[in-house]
Amino acid sequence: MAERVEGFNFEQRHGKERVRVARVWKTKEGKHYVVEWRVGISLLSDCVNSYLRDDNSDIVATDTMKNTVYAKAKECSEILSVENFAIELAKHFISFYRQVTTAIVNIVEKPWERIIADGQPHMHGFKLGSERHTVEAIVKKSGALQLTSGVEGLSVLKTTKLSMLYRNLYFDFDIIFPSGFEGFIRDKYTALPETRERMLATEVTGLWRYSYESLSSVPQKPLYFVERYDDVKRVLLETFFGPPNVGVYSPSVQNTLYQMARATLNRFPDIDSVQLKMPNIHFLPVNISNTGGQIVKFNDDVYLPTDEPHGSIQATLSRFWSKM
Amino acid sequence: MAERVEGFNFEQRHGKERVRVARVWKTKEGKHYVVEWRVGISLLSDCVNSYLRDDNSDIVATDTMKNTVYAKAKECSEILSVENFAIELAKHFISFYRQVTTAIVNIVEKPWERIIADGQPHMHGFKLGSERHTVEAIVKKSGALQLTSGVEGLSVLKTTKLSMLYRNLYFDFDIIFPSGFEGFIRDKYTALPETRERMLATEVTGLWRYSYESLSSVPQKPLYFVERYDDVKRVLLETFFGPPNVGVYSPSVQNTLYQMARATLNRFPDIDSVQLKMPNIHFLPVNISNTGGQIVKFNDDVYLPTDEPHGSIQATLSRFWSKM
Amino acid sequence: MAERVEGFNFEQRHGKERVRVARVWKTKEGKHYVVEWRVGISLLSDCVNSYLRDDNSDIVATDTMKNTVYAKAKECSEILSVENFAIELAKHFISFYRQVTTAIVNIVEKPWERIIADGQPHMHGFKLGSERHTVEAIVKKSGALQLTSGVEGLSVLKTTKLSMLYRNLYFDFDIIFPSGFEGFIRDKYTALPETRERMLATEVTGLWRYSYESLSSVPQKPLYFVERYDDVKRVLLETFFGPPNVGVYSPSVQNTLYQMARATLNRFPDIDSVQLKMPNIHFLPVNISNTGGQIVKFNDDVYLPTDEPHGSIQATLSRFWSKM
Amino acid sequence: MAERVEGFNFEQRHGKERVRVARVWKTKEGKHYVVEWRVGISLLSDCVNSYLRDDNSDIVATDTMKNTVYAKAKECSEILSVENFAIELAKHFISFYRQVTTAIVNIVEKPWERIIADGQPHMHGFKLGSERHTVEAIVKKSGALQLTSGVEGLSVLKTTKLSMLYRNLYFDFDIIFPSGFEGFIRDKYTALPETRERMLATEVTGLWRYSYESLSSVPQKPLYFVERYDDVKRVLLETFFGPPNVGVYSPSVQNTLYQMARATLNRFPDIDSVQLKMPNIHFLPVNISNTGGQIVKFNDDVYLPTDEPHGSIQATLSRFWSKM
Repeated sequence: MAERVEGFNFEQRHGKERVRVARVWKTKEGKHYVVEWRVGISLLSDCVNSYLRDDNSDIVATDTMKNTVYAKAKECSEILSVENFAIELAKHFISFYRQVTTAIVNIVEKPWERIIADGQPHMHGFKLGSERHTVEAIVKKSGALQLTSGVEGLSVLKTTKLSMLYRNLYFDFDIIFPSGFEGFIRDKYTALPETRERMLATEVTGLWRYSYESLSSVPQKPLYFVERYDDVKRVLLETFFGPPNVGVYSPSVQNTLYQMARATLNRFPDIDSVQLKMPNIHFLPVNISNTGGQIVKFNDDVYLPTDEPHGSIQATLSRFWSKM
Repeated sequence: MAERVEGFNFEQRHGKERVRVARVWKTKEGKHYVVEWRVGISLLSDCVNSYLRDDNSDIVATDTMKNTVYAKAKECSEILSVENFAIELAKHFISFYRQVTTAIVNIVEKPWERIIADGQPHMHGFKLGSERHTVEAIVKKSGALQLTSGVEGLSVLKTTKLSMLYRNLYFDFDIIFPSGFEGFIRDKYTALPETRERMLATEVTGLWRYSYESLSSVPQKPLYFVERYDDVKRVLLETFFGPPNVGVYSPSVQNTLYQMARATLNRFPDIDSVQLKMPNIHFLPVNISNTGGQIVKFNDDVYLPTDEPHGSIQATLSRFWSKM
Repeated sequence: MAERVEGFNFEQRHGKERVRVARVWKTKEGKHYVVEWRVGISLLSDCVNSYLRDDNSDIVATDTMKNTVYAKAKECSEILSVENFAIELAKHFISFYRQVTTAIVNIVEKPWERIIADGQPHMHGFKLGSERHTVEAIVKKSGALQLTSGVEGLSVLKTTKLSMLYRNLYFDFDIIFPSGFEGFIRDKYTALPETRERMLATEVTGLWRYSYESLSSVPQKPLYFVERYDDVKRVLLETFFGPPNVGVYSPSVQNTLYQMARATLNRFPDIDSVQLKMPNIHFLPVNISNTGGQIVKFNDDVYLPTDEPHGSIQATLSRFWSKM
Repeated sequence: MAERVEGFNFEQRHGKERVRVARVWKTKEGKHYVVEWRVGISLLSDCVNSYLRDDNSDIVATDTMKNTVYAKAKECSEILSVENFAIELAKHFISFYRQVTTAIVNIVEKPWERIIADGQPHMHGFKLGSERHTVEAIVKKSGALQLTSGVEGLSVLKTTKLSMLYRNLYFDFDIIFPSGFEGFIRDKYTALPETRERMLATEVTGLWRYSYESLSSVPQKPLYFVERYDDVKRVLLETFFGPPNVGVYSPSVQNTLYQMARATLNRFPDIDSVQLKMPNIHFLPVNISNTGGQIVKFNDDVYLPTDEPHGSIQATLSRFWSKM
């Protein structure tokens, strides 16, 4: 979108952020469905005159963008995935406005979950859950599509993992051995003992890009992407935790992250690439001493959880032909 | 704790806030339990000299308080409720230090929930949930106790409720009628139409004070208060939502709050008082017009959720003899 | 406000929080003034029927409260202090509504500061500063007033202070000695060396209650309380920091806090009591070692600033006759 | 950095975020200087084995990165700019570790400002200000450098601006006319009246990239970039606000943003490109009516400030040869 302006290179976008909308659908039987979305819209468009001079004639007012979110939500007479809504919105902007060449729509869905009461799903009662479903749809005037779904705020923790390696090293300890981190570079700035970390805690932010590359190729089922979201989350969690009775050993966050990304690509043929950010949130072993001796001696039991500093590990795994 | 100092009244407290600790317990079978607590400690003590002059001889250093949290967590060889841990800590401070007359311990528990994989609880895998369990234990040198548990961040929403009243007023609408708010004071500052609010959304903060008034009267079962917490939450939610198939009508947040507090007192004889804060988080009906007509016409379907401003409703219901 | 209801004690309040309003005033010469306020209103009123049954006839709708904020802001044709606006609002609620017995108004003012350009104050340009001016006005139907102003977010740091005491202890060190904390209780949970803290950093939250006890006794000058706010802040800062060239020694946060509160009461005869919260925000000395020796050796130079845990120190100093 | 792994494309980075460090320097005369930095480090390196298998031999432990921050801060015996510290750190990582091909260092400086007491700068007293200085230094093994400084949290507001255009439209109004937005696209989703916005408020996030493209070309003066930071901020503010007595008219946020970016490039020859994000933070005119008439009628005086939704406007202006 760069263009030449007064001797400079110039790139711009404008839009509206944090447009909040909730949509309720009701079946004849009185069952209600509700979604709450926080929508961001950015338009790439031919409107350089609004920057250079007193001429707004090519500007889509951001207030108009906001109204459009509500108008389009109103038009959705059947429940649909947040992915489908993002695509609908983006499609509108590129087709309705001559000046708009690309529309970028980001949505975060608030995790309202249906209440279970007396073992039964409630007809119209909801409670807020934790991690959030996200989507970004980028649509060009040509109809070309880039669709990326994600999850954010998925905080997970495992208190140990079985490792044959550790079994050899520490054979006089418990038969269930902690996760670990060892064999890394040691130099004059290194103070970390090799087995210091006993817990693995992280807040996963995941993004996965679908292989649908045009508006016309998107699956028609209105809740297709809702199921995909649940399935991807399940694969990520299963790979992170391993089987319920024995777990799985993590030699490093790096390795666990890679296993999770690979499992997702292997399982879902219509996902082309996966990006995972998995900050290493530290649970420091507590050892406290004073001149009179040790106040607290760590024995895989007492930890100091800390938000900062944290390790940051992120990677993207994609099929050979992906452009993410 | 007020005292006379240099001709003034003087009250003081000091302590340590945001002490974070995690504790892991492991059974012989390899099942792990984990809690993560954020602890705050305030001490009322005879240490006025530290304020008046260069004399810290009666001060418990806040660093020492922090160490004590870890030392006491270490001593807990069996899993216990956050309430019991708060009491243990407070008891330590009033008994260990001559100068301390009252110890106030506040703890927020981070909602780590055991993962279910393949329909089975995981041995050592946990995921972060949403609402948080809180406790405040106040212990005096005499052994007098004030124990208040709570829940925070319990966000709930219902999209409608059956009301016979509304059935009469709006008989040509759907047989399931929205929640409502009507009959309030109308004056020259009033612009709210009587049936404007169609959804009830709130983030409940609840506090309930137990009737145990001394250290010696507290139930001995280590997870007694964990069960109580779950039970109180269930009663609050059931009263808010009503039965899964028909719900319950709310004529106002006030009335719903009162029903919730009363149900809690009626159900749990060892709870003496209940305080509920239930901000009315508004989901505004969307109607948008321009000179060309209506862009969006509200029909119980499209809402604008908004965090500010919000209504604030809070009340405390207590047994006649309670001192909360 | 407790009353007997269905065999229980019952206390309640309701209101509106986070009502945001900005007000602009313009002089004939084209100089603009702007304030931005976040208003919270709580009413104590006779409206128990709204809790007990389907009867909202004694309820002031919170939407009406919100409108009143804007209507009253409009009525203020001259610039006035946030204290005066809070009093105006509270006065309205207790006089306009028969049911309201007490009105509590809290306001936080956003710190928009006039820009200086070319050494000249700008006619209509403003930039956001840091600490915030707060007020709480409580007005009863009788006209009784409780007026408390405050400051929040006032973050301050001093990197050293001259102490004769330390001079004796550490005479081979630099002649400018660090602040310190020593002589506190030492026991088996104590690991803190006596001279560990070299910096004093805190985020002051201050509240000061004025002696005006009725609506009729409040000073008439519209900006009286704006000047007071600036003056109180100046006294707090001067006492904290000491003279620009030599500073002042702090033997403890406790002592510094006390000096600040006392200086305020001594300086302002119409302030009856002062509450200060001064969390001790720790800047930990950095010492890092590994088996090969010391990586970083602390020498009053490199610190690790940390938000949690933090010490918490708070105290209230009031004239003998104050009821705060 | 993409490489081929098990049939997939793979990209990764790891590092440490939120490493907090404060550094104090003292002159012989007893004047202290303090900086507080929050450092983030990302390394691109040859360590794919740590992802694929149980082999951490090419991993720089993030704990080691953290220690390095403190060790390097210690080594800085003279005060230096945050830019110079970022470059020092990055240079260390690419030169010390064979495996590291690129180091990316991000730092946010906390705005501690020297206190003025009795009209004199304090020797060792500091108070927290508002907007923050940021830097990103990217250094490759070859010595190639990319240095980008920035400011975040710079919140500004102007309550009006003189416009000849508006003078014609509203000649019967005050001679100082409001800022405006008009002439934009009108369609069936448009409800915004053309003159609705009377204030311009935004929180500027700015980034400017320097032209120094190798470690050896960076200016040697230790506080060179501190001065640049102050100067760029001054140019941005002067362009936004205009002269103190008359201001400058903004026909749109777009135009104001462009003027600010262009003024920066024109003034500083060693800055190659400027990116500005200037969300349009809305101050909505307040008009409230009920069936009895108008409760509040807007007359450029009472506004509702709102954080969401907000307009988002961002653009990058660069010299023809820039690669940002």
